Amino acid sequence: MRDLKRKDKLVEAAGDAYGKTLSLAVLDVCSDESVKQCINSIKDRHVDVLINNAGIGLVGPVESIPIEEMKKVFETNFFGVIRMIKEVMPDMKQRRGGHIIVVSSVMGLQGIVFNDVYAASKFAMEGFCESLAVQLLKFNVILSLIEPGPVHTEFEAKMIQDVKQKEYPGADPDTVHYFKNIYLPSSVDIFEALGQTPDDIAKCTKKVIEASRPRFRNLTNPLYTPIVALKYADETGGLSVHAFYHMLFNMGPLMHVSMTAIKYLTCGCLRRRTISPN
Amino acid sequence: MRDLKRKDKLVEAAGDAYGKTLSLAVLDVCSDESVKQCINSIKDRHVDVLINNAGIGLVGPVESIPIEEMKKVFETNFFGVIRMIKEVMPDMKQRRGGHIIVVSSVMGLQGIVFNDVYAASKFAMEGFCESLAVQLLKFNVILSLIEPGPVHTEFEAKMIQDVKQKEYPGADPDTVHYFKNIYLPSSVDIFEALGQTPDDIAKCTKKVIEASRPRFRNLTNPLYTPIVALKYADETGGLSVHAFYHMLFNMGPLMHVSMTAIKYLTCGCLRRRTISPN
Repeated sequence: MRDLKRKDKLVEAAGDAYGKTLSLAVLDVCSDESVKQCINSIKDRHVDVLINNAGIGLVGPVESIPIEEMKKVFETNFFGVIRMIKEVMPDMKQRRGGHIIVVSSVMGLQGIVFNDVYAASKFAMEGFCESLAVQLLKFNVILSLIEPGPVHTEFEAKMIQDVKQKEYPGADPDTVHYFKNIYLPSSVDIFEALGQTPDDIAKCTKKVIEASRPRFRNLTNPLYTPIVALKYADETGGLSVHAFYHMLFNMGPLMHVSMTAIKYLTCGCLRRRTISPN
Repeated sequence: MRDLKRKDKLVEAAGDAYGKTLSLAVLDVCSDESVKQCINSIKDRHVDVLINNAGIGLVGPVESIPIEEMKKVFETNFFGVIRMIKEVMPDMKQRRGGHIIVVSSVMGLQGIVFNDVYAASKFAMEGFCESLAVQLLKFNVILSLIEPGPVHTEFEAKMIQDVKQKEYPGADPDTVHYFKNIYLPSSVDIFEALGQTPDDIAKCTKKVIEASRPRFRNLTNPLYTPIVALKYADETGGLSVHAFYHMLFNMGPLMHVSMTAIKYLTCGCLRRRTISPN
């Protein structure tokens, strides 16, 4: 954890395991020094499974986001993972064994309007891992990507609240209108209808670790598979761009109704029963 | 250009156009100040078509590349493009017209072994553009990606030469062996058999600009379409990872023969005749 003072919830959830099979260490993936210290504190620096889960979000019109703020997202979501992999991978390669897991996102496979920079950081991870996985196979080191859709966290709820109140200097009134009054309500609908819990994602990750032949890509939410299929169905990219355009700008009210229907019809059962990979 | 002292070749190629319909300006996409000055020097800051072509390469084992060197690649290939788009896009949106072109790469769609960071930077562009294109459509601003495969440039020849001589501190001997003796010869074969010229890419870009309905994605080299199809055919990603693994580590000599055959059989005709999009 970055800050051990915030460990209480985790310690409570861990129960008896804490202090026996679970120990905590300080880690800031944005610091070379912290990454080195954390791995050095492990006995023989021996890591069997590395799970890269640290990540931050960013949403809003590009015009109103300073480049420096974009770089912070890349520092955690992309370079943070690279730092960890660089520190752990050489030992894994030498031992001819190990499993590196990277928590990416469905937005690493398909960009979503007003999530330009977050999607870019997750796409970057996907490209990096696609390249690295081929080489690692030669060393019997496995690389797996976990691609969640929307996940209900405190962080998410806070972000949606913040966004409503925030001003977006630099962005024109039309863009701010599309963002606040069209994108944001759709986004909330989608979260409520399709969102998974952090526990769902943890269960999926456990399955991937325990699999005899872990998959490279693992979409946790099968309800998102059609989005990726849409992209893959048309190499010109036009199908995805136009489908998202119509969904957002022409079918907003219809989508609201559909998502509300999904939410109430499933009462969460659909979501609970459909944690991939099976 | 970053350095106007290097304009001679361009001026020669431009002929009569230089000083009439073509003018040159200093631009360093890594500098906020330079980007602002360059766009301010244009009459009314009016840009109809923005072509983002600046890019740098990086190849080699991840273990031997410092994070700072990786960040330089992102500074040009990703944040350089964002700087230009942020400077030009608001005026285009206000005018309800304009065309932004981003020169990505086939490595923005499929990662290639030992090109981890370069692929990541191009993937990042793809994710950013997929997200932004949907919003821009509402403002009648078009966004197009150009995705070349290997392109013969002085830069490329020099890089291959450099790589042969360079040491790779931090990488184990096996990894350096796979890189220098297996990946590199394959890469040279592929360049010689499938490489296009910068002129091919310029022609493709011109077609995209002049199209009545420009495509979002534009692979310049149709010989690369199967690579992307392979990825899209299998959502688990296993097909691509294993295909590249076998191509590289088990079929090296066979691939050398195939690529040499393609090279001599086509005498370059195939390559010249197949500039996409048609």
